[in-house]
Amino acid sequence: MSRFHGPHTIALGSAVAELETPSLVVDLDAMERNIARMASFAAQAGLRWRPHAKLHKCGALALQLIAAGASGCCVQKLAEAEAMQAAGVNDIYISNEVLDARKLQRVAQLAQSARLAIATDSTLGVRRLAQAMAKTSPNSHIDVFIEINVGQNRAGLHSDDDLVVLAREIASHPPLRFVGLHAYHGGAQHIEDASTRAQTMQHSYARVRNAQAKLAAAGFADLEVTGAGTGTFALEAASGIYTELQPGSFLFMDAHYAQVSPVPHQPVFEHALFIKTQVISCAPTHVVVDAGHKSHAIDSGLPVVWNDGRTPVYQFANGGDEHGIIRPCETAASAQLPAWGDNLWLVPGHCDPTVNLHDVLIGVRGGLHEGHVERLLPVDARGALW
Amino acid sequence: MSRFHGPHTIALGSAVAELETPSLVVDLDAMERNIARMASFAAQAGLRWRPHAKLHKCGALALQLIAAGASGCCVQKLAEAEAMQAAGVNDIYISNEVLDARKLQRVAQLAQSARLAIATDSTLGVRRLAQAMAKTSPNSHIDVFIEINVGQNRAGLHSDDDLVVLAREIASHPPLRFVGLHAYHGGAQHIEDASTRAQTMQHSYARVRNAQAKLAAAGFADLEVTGAGTGTFALEAASGIYTELQPGSFLFMDAHYAQVSPVPHQPVFEHALFIKTQVISCAPTHVVVDAGHKSHAIDSGLPVVWNDGRTPVYQFANGGDEHGIIRPCETAASAQLPAWGDNLWLVPGHCDPTVNLHDVLIGVRGGLHEGHVERLLPVDARGALW
Repeated sequence: MSRFHGPHTIALGSAVAELETPSLVVDLDAMERNIARMASFAAQAGLRWRPHAKLHKCGALALQLIAAGASGCCVQKLAEAEAMQAAGVNDIYISNEVLDARKLQRVAQLAQSARLAIATDSTLGVRRLAQAMAKTSPNSHIDVFIEINVGQNRAGLHSDDDLVVLAREIASHPPLRFVGLHAYHGGAQHIEDASTRAQTMQHSYARVRNAQAKLAAAGFADLEVTGAGTGTFALEAASGIYTELQPGSFLFMDAHYAQVSPVPHQPVFEHALFIKTQVISCAPTHVVVDAGHKSHAIDSGLPVVWNDGRTPVYQFANGGDEHGIIRPCETAASAQLPAWGDNLWLVPGHCDPTVNLHDVLIGVRGGLHEGHVERLLPVDARGALW
Repeated sequence: MSRFHGPHTIALGSAVAELETPSLVVDLDAMERNIARMASFAAQAGLRWRPHAKLHKCGALALQLIAAGASGCCVQKLAEAEAMQAAGVNDIYISNEVLDARKLQRVAQLAQSARLAIATDSTLGVRRLAQAMAKTSPNSHIDVFIEINVGQNRAGLHSDDDLVVLAREIASHPPLRFVGLHAYHGGAQHIEDASTRAQTMQHSYARVRNAQAKLAAAGFADLEVTGAGTGTFALEAASGIYTELQPGSFLFMDAHYAQVSPVPHQPVFEHALFIKTQVISCAPTHVVVDAGHKSHAIDSGLPVVWNDGRTPVYQFANGGDEHGIIRPCETAASAQLPAWGDNLWLVPGHCDPTVNLHDVLIGVRGGLHEGHVERLLPVDARGALW
């Protein structure tokens, strides 16, 4: 955590109006409504729900989700798993490949103090994991999912040829338990049209069914299937294949997710993560705010200038690392520009890497205008890349 | 700094080959050659040189640049200035507008313990700064530059109409010293063709000359002019207008700067900042590495896969927050893919926001293959947004 002035010096109870800029602010009321909606959906679907902590990287929020019904949390990095375990989470799934032998020693160590699961797609990874478990934690065990490529064309087995061999390899090592398939299609989450998205996912589900059949024929039955993100989870739930849902972004809702048409019958979530900014310079046709892409990630598009849920009046243009340029939207071309010192609130295009830029999430109660600071939520796993 | 496993646990003297991934690594030999080239250039040009610390955010590197001839450092954020002052830098220029009254109290506080300068483009900002200085540091002073828009169309005065009024406003407050013009064109730095870039900058210099003439007619003579970045500094130096150069990126050299043709007679710099990654998954036509855009910024393009200065054999495709996808370049289509566990080195597209993602720069001596860890350089101002 930065040793210099920053959000961690804020007093609880402070007025939101007093927060300096740029600040990363969570609307706790909106977030908690999002949690209740997802918890209710998972309960009605009868599915386990292990939301991804790569979004919030915050032990306190992982525990809050568990209190609401989540079984644990997913992470992408071992160091994130260590941070969540240190915060008291005792059911953690590292939904990613880990291959380095020293890291696998740490995985084995972690398996002593948490119910731990990990993804794999290689015999080498499985053998190294087994060696690490045998050496470090011979009396513990770890759940292993085989990742299969269901359309993102990133990691995961790209064909079924090696599937049974890999499952047998896992099963041959007593500390390892082959529990099922990891089948996540990251690329599908942001397909804007819901029916195109649903069609894309049908290919993914067919791939899972084929893999299940192949494994069943080799004697591997009753397997878990884990996956799903905020753009598709209602489809996975309806597929009848998945046993566990991983979505995390529903908690805060990226600006881009607002442009993604929802799947029928899925809960609708609210934006709950904001950057508070201040106008520091005024020009004839634009103003400049003090938030640039060191304050918010722009990999999935620029932030949206929040208008309390109404159609935006201003649009954000990239002003570099430390600046944002604000102009009226085309649909509000005659809108008056903000003035020096005015505050604007931004909805980040992509929340996960935005949170990773900050040390603290400032949790406010009572809204962005009249509210006060209720919680300071440290981003425990910020920068946890290892 | 993350409390979990990370680069800060590395022992000095460790072999580079042993570094875990993804790691942010500085080739100290290359960096020091870059420093020597820039120091020599500035000395021959007879210009003050105050390199921008928004790149490295590291007090130790700011001091190393000062030892090589820099007069101090520039920063974009007050919290960066506080971090540099705490590290022992005593000449700091906040090259950005600060408008918040509480922040200006901190600026005034800082003026007691460092030679401090700040940019402004508003009467409101000047009056608030003067109030803060009068209240907090009546016996100190602060240098004030007026920022003028020289083509980026971001902050800075967009016409000369208010220039003299603003200069007089600054001069009317005894703790404030009006020292000159801030004239930086960020947008020009990455114009790839050198002659187009030079032409663009001619417009900037004309704007500076007009402003100087207007101020001289009002009695403001012998003014400083500060600006320049790694793409244009040789042009500013040759313009005869600038008294101070601010470039910072020459230290590490973004991947994109390698595609920017150098200005004639400017020193050529080497890439000195790298992400070490590991292959964690292999597919028939690509492999996956463990570095995504939580490890490196992609706002100025994707990283380049380093081939020890030779033409790259592999290209990087975006795999999301935690993954990178590696394929052979079109020019090397028959190249064999890397194998599980292989290390690849990435040159970040944009170094400034990449450094900001990490807690520590791992300084290695003796190259990326045979070298060892000589220094661990904390990113003191990581996340210093306030």
